[in-house]
Amino acid sequence: MKIAITGKGGAGKTTLAAGIAQLFARQDYQVYAVDADPDISLGTTLGVPEEQLAAQPPLIEMKELIAERTGAGGGIYILNPQVDDILDKYAIELGRIKLLRMGAVKHASTACYCPENAFLHAVVNSLLLGNQEVVILDMGAGIEHLTRGTARGVDLMLIVTEPTKVSVDTARVIQKLSSEMGVPKIRVIGNKIRSAKEREFLVEQFTEEEILGCLEFDEELWERAMLEDSGGLGEVLLKSVSMVFDQILREGGGVAGANS
Amino acid sequence: MKIAITGKGGAGKTTLAAGIAQLFARQDYQVYAVDADPDISLGTTLGVPEEQLAAQPPLIEMKELIAERTGAGGGIYILNPQVDDILDKYAIELGRIKLLRMGAVKHASTACYCPENAFLHAVVNSLLLGNQEVVILDMGAGIEHLTRGTARGVDLMLIVTEPTKVSVDTARVIQKLSSEMGVPKIRVIGNKIRSAKEREFLVEQFTEEEILGCLEFDEELWERAMLEDSGGLGEVLLKSVSMVFDQILREGGGVAGANS
Repeated sequence: MKIAITGKGGAGKTTLAAGIAQLFARQDYQVYAVDADPDISLGTTLGVPEEQLAAQPPLIEMKELIAERTGAGGGIYILNPQVDDILDKYAIELGRIKLLRMGAVKHASTACYCPENAFLHAVVNSLLLGNQEVVILDMGAGIEHLTRGTARGVDLMLIVTEPTKVSVDTARVIQKLSSEMGVPKIRVIGNKIRSAKEREFLVEQFTEEEILGCLEFDEELWERAMLEDSGGLGEVLLKSVSMVFDQILREGGGVAGANS
Repeated sequence: MKIAITGKGGAGKTTLAAGIAQLFARQDYQVYAVDADPDISLGTTLGVPEEQLAAQPPLIEMKELIAERTGAGGGIYILNPQVDDILDKYAIELGRIKLLRMGAVKHASTACYCPENAFLHAVVNSLLLGNQEVVILDMGAGIEHLTRGTARGVDLMLIVTEPTKVSVDTARVIQKLSSEMGVPKIRVIGNKIRSAKEREFLVEQFTEEEILGCLEFDEELWERAMLEDSGGLGEVLLKSVSMVFDQILREGGGVAGANS
């Protein structure tokens, strides 16, 4: 199963991605968690120490290594389980989670992230996953990863939205672009719900089929987000995310079935 | 004065940009408010009806018009007050605020926003502003507008951050990149502060000179963000933003002086 997590900035993409990754890992999945935002934070949210994150080579550097092995000029990448050793070189292992990041922070006024996005798409698209493997892409805020097509080839697009008009507007644009892109399943997750009124507002914006679930705003989670070196957001986070996780497994269809 | 507003997704860039634009307008500045995020929302936050926003031509379309007038192949754009009529064609007028947007939403998997970013940089960089004129750039979330150099040429970089580790981490990266880019003044604004503990956390992360001010989390503002057609966020927003506005005017130096 390949899952991309998108939404307006601040909606809670990274927190959700970290939570889903940990829950899949608990169910004995091999998880590839990919930070597709050059402004890395998925690693921080998963509790990886800063020095370790700073030392991690970005996935884009793998491009040369693959070119060497395949002799390919750069156009097509054939990845399969046999390249696990390549992926491992770029991954930070957290139990059953392999954390990868798309690209490093570049210098000011030097370049865009088009090559990184193109390469990430090629990697994700050509990964042949086993039944108990899942890729989770934590996309950058906004919509450019969609117009660039970075998330093409995912099975499930999860769009996280807060109960605000601007966040819902972005969710709608993402729905439309994901559909144009041919993503088979596109689902909205309401996040940071503080009241019955907010839940009502959000539920009214989408059809029942479109909404996968809603998560309440969690004051304790927020508190913990302030702490350094918390070792990930822990049980509080997982408890919150587990409210939508079963539904995600169900949407995963055959893959989820293999696990039950 | 040219001001760019940046920060991690969800930190409150757009709300702040809208508030600052309105406060400058009240002081009789001519304000150019530019939505530099292809996932437009500054217009919504300023209270522009959806149909009007949907009909607004993006700034990038001006490129051809300028090429026609100047006969330039596309490299250099000479903009000055005499091209006001061009700008006007692309602006939505809200009193003394002219709202511009960088680019329209593209189709999925078709393109990046590199041309839009390059053009926006050229426009902002070549605008010759009078004393009572200000440009406010509401940048996209994250850091790519910095590695692309879109915000090069601004006088003041305002970095909005929430009191969380990941938001502060992003603020630090933006500080570094802005400095590399040669932005003369770089200031951090703490936002969504909910407690003395959160304020303390934030203040500890930066030097006194680095922090321009802190804004408290405003429950009422949040409530209003849920409402459609609220005609902008109104007085509640302005009251909140005015806490840092005087400081922004002061940082603006000569420009602010001309007004007092």
